[in-house]
Amino acid sequence: MVDLAAEPRIVTAGVSLLDEALAAQAVAHLPVDWRPPLPGTDQELARVLGDPRRAAANAVAAERMLAAGATLVDVLPAAEVVGLRPGEFCHAGPPITWERASGPLRGALIGAMLFEGLAGSPDEASSLLAGGSVPIEPCHARGGVGPMAGVVSPSMWVFVLRDEAHDRTSWCTLNEGLGKVLRYGAYAPEVIDRLRWMSAVLGPALQAAVRRSGPIDVKAIIGQMVQMGDEGHNRNRAGTLMLLRDLLPHLVDAGLPSTDVAAVARLIGGNDHFFLNLVMPAAKLQTAAAANIPGATVVTTMARNGTDFGIQVSGTGDAWFTGPAGVPSGLFLGGYGPDDANPDIGDSAITETAGLGGFAMAGAPAIVRFVGGTVPDAVRTTSEMYEITVAENPAYALPVLEFRGAPTGIDVASVVRTGLLPQINTGIAGRVPGTGQVGAGLVQPPVECFTTALSALASAAPPM
Amino acid sequence: MVDLAAEPRIVTAGVSLLDEALAAQAVAHLPVDWRPPLPGTDQELARVLGDPRRAAANAVAAERMLAAGATLVDVLPAAEVVGLRPGEFCHAGPPITWERASGPLRGALIGAMLFEGLAGSPDEASSLLAGGSVPIEPCHARGGVGPMAGVVSPSMWVFVLRDEAHDRTSWCTLNEGLGKVLRYGAYAPEVIDRLRWMSAVLGPALQAAVRRSGPIDVKAIIGQMVQMGDEGHNRNRAGTLMLLRDLLPHLVDAGLPSTDVAAVARLIGGNDHFFLNLVMPAAKLQTAAAANIPGATVVTTMARNGTDFGIQVSGTGDAWFTGPAGVPSGLFLGGYGPDDANPDIGDSAITETAGLGGFAMAGAPAIVRFVGGTVPDAVRTTSEMYEITVAENPAYALPVLEFRGAPTGIDVASVVRTGLLPQINTGIAGRVPGTGQVGAGLVQPPVECFTTALSALASAAPPM
Repeated sequence: MVDLAAEPRIVTAGVSLLDEALAAQAVAHLPVDWRPPLPGTDQELARVLGDPRRAAANAVAAERMLAAGATLVDVLPAAEVVGLRPGEFCHAGPPITWERASGPLRGALIGAMLFEGLAGSPDEASSLLAGGSVPIEPCHARGGVGPMAGVVSPSMWVFVLRDEAHDRTSWCTLNEGLGKVLRYGAYAPEVIDRLRWMSAVLGPALQAAVRRSGPIDVKAIIGQMVQMGDEGHNRNRAGTLMLLRDLLPHLVDAGLPSTDVAAVARLIGGNDHFFLNLVMPAAKLQTAAAANIPGATVVTTMARNGTDFGIQVSGTGDAWFTGPAGVPSGLFLGGYGPDDANPDIGDSAITETAGLGGFAMAGAPAIVRFVGGTVPDAVRTTSEMYEITVAENPAYALPVLEFRGAPTGIDVASVVRTGLLPQINTGIAGRVPGTGQVGAGLVQPPVECFTTALSALASAAPPM
Repeated sequence: MVDLAAEPRIVTAGVSLLDEALAAQAVAHLPVDWRPPLPGTDQELARVLGDPRRAAANAVAAERMLAAGATLVDVLPAAEVVGLRPGEFCHAGPPITWERASGPLRGALIGAMLFEGLAGSPDEASSLLAGGSVPIEPCHARGGVGPMAGVVSPSMWVFVLRDEAHDRTSWCTLNEGLGKVLRYGAYAPEVIDRLRWMSAVLGPALQAAVRRSGPIDVKAIIGQMVQMGDEGHNRNRAGTLMLLRDLLPHLVDAGLPSTDVAAVARLIGGNDHFFLNLVMPAAKLQTAAAANIPGATVVTTMARNGTDFGIQVSGTGDAWFTGPAGVPSGLFLGGYGPDDANPDIGDSAITETAGLGGFAMAGAPAIVRFVGGTVPDAVRTTSEMYEITVAENPAYALPVLEFRGAPTGIDVASVVRTGLLPQINTGIAGRVPGTGQVGAGLVQPPVECFTTALSALASAAPPM
């Protein structure tokens, strides 16, 4: 029923002529930024939007994402936490085989074979891996995350994080630093030597400090860092410094050799990305809390293996919806250029899945000097992400937006309805195995991830 | 001559009707934000603006402010750096006597007498100070700065900073932390005990670390912190963390007892304001570089002693231009309120004099939760400060303003011409001696500082 007795409310959309005319006449109106849905999705979109479970299911998903905690409780070898046995490896992104693996993932697997002593040379490692007898599996399948290639082997140490609100554990490897590092596909002897030092010194030192300090509230640090120009994906400078502040007194007290303490302090202090490896499992705990709610259209995972981009959605459980990973555009290091770039890789898009990274760039304008784009672009990106998300996270309040919470919980239906894709910022790996990092930039998931997820959600919806 | 053959250029000012009419007709025009000058200043303003030396002198002042460096080179007792002898004290702001001193300045002087062992009780210290035989002098008179009451005694340790570009040294005391502390006028036994620990442990430990590390580039850290949500006056969180990062490996290596190292790490890590005491002398080096240029109308000092607000100006040398210090309005701690607030106090307004603090609030929107106001206020404040300053500092680039440099070098003539006063954000001391901090807020200098400075500049200008 239209209430003609009351003053009409005017909503304007599309081109701005009507909007401007109303403004010039001082008529109250609400301009909306309407966009056409992705082509060919009308029927499935109607079915998903009409699913009577959807609103309540997404509300539960949002509530759980916002309620999830994340505390660093221990640092342990992956063998103990992830359950990896000798000769087993995890990797970033959706499942993949050696045959389809990109250069940096192959390089990191080769390096991990060398590190574990399972091969004597890169060639031998390649042969063994190509032979198909080496089991590899996504980190996400074991509840954890790995940056870039995301290769994890049993002897690598991992951060162990807990979400007590939902009684869940997640994990992530320790950050190696920049340049020629395993996660970017490098496997030179210096890379392997660094991994050995990390297992022999860094991991046990961090374990001693964490055990002395007691649980460290990673969620609270993320809440602070987004007030300090970090967005938690490619800027983790303030987060790294706060972790250093919290750990160091305990590291000093732990009775370790002072040369080891100083080396650990230098490594963390000299690597602005160190804290990324804590933001990622914190984000994983947040999104995992929203998983497996029938009817919920919220994305719980975005991850890339360097070949495929894959998403998982709350209402469809562990199913992966994939498409070809795009090549990020951005800024390149040294003599590298776009031709050197591998397609998008890594589990770090879990930060965007949780409302950080590209979604929180408004609060981190300095990031444009690292990933490209302009400051107004960064602010606009966050504003747009509110259009495709189901919640705002008060724990991650962005001061520049007058403390509005970060846009959280990507809604597959909203992505399809608006055609607005999630914005991810990311490191760029060299496509040739062994190269390492070549730059950093911006990238979006392929549309197919969302249209195929929509189809699955539509199939799972009750008949209309 | 008016060139009527060319298209006219239209400049609009004042109320916006003409501006809006031109915009509606799509006529190119340049709106300017015109404001009337301070009343009664027309003749002196004309004289100063007409001083043929002024443009070049201010350009030199700006150039020197931007070229000034600031490196932390040592940590030493004030006796060695400031040249204070036993029984001599420095204080914040322009010169003042005990009779006119406010509560927090009196409280801090009492505490310093107790700390130096020159009195056995607060009453005895008060009597001695009231007797007039205790020499007190501004920190600025000895090339240094002191936060809040700014009281310095010979046994206190100070940071020593160098500007190699202009061969100049500055200094500032070490930060005591928050709450009941000497600089806010507290002098309870716990305050004096902390000062003793700072001289016995903290100062020597910092000295050892700085000497092992070599000079620390404070200017570079400030350049980073303004990209991390700090404005360098009431937010120094990122700056403090970066200092900790740079010092700690050397502190660990220095062979000190690990309990002392852990205590120093905890003190710095637990006090987000620790780095203020390095921003202040860095700002002093920057503004001192612009001093004593005949004809220059740039402010080189803004400082308050809790009773008077005083400024010094490049073209008028060491002369102070004073007016009554205002009471900051802002947010109060615990059960305190506006009635508990002392008038504005401290040398920390040197940060605003150098383009930081209130001038850089656009880059530190979270500060409104500490000093009051809104995020749009903070952004607007920085925008306004460009109208009264002579330069933009590329070393202190504000990402949210698309990396525009902080507004630097307050021009007395511009302040008088526009009536826009410098915006300062500040801690608020309790007015009763011994209270400590009661809040933080926003304050402006009294107009008299600028009108009397203008008179002096007019008198010193060549005849028109």
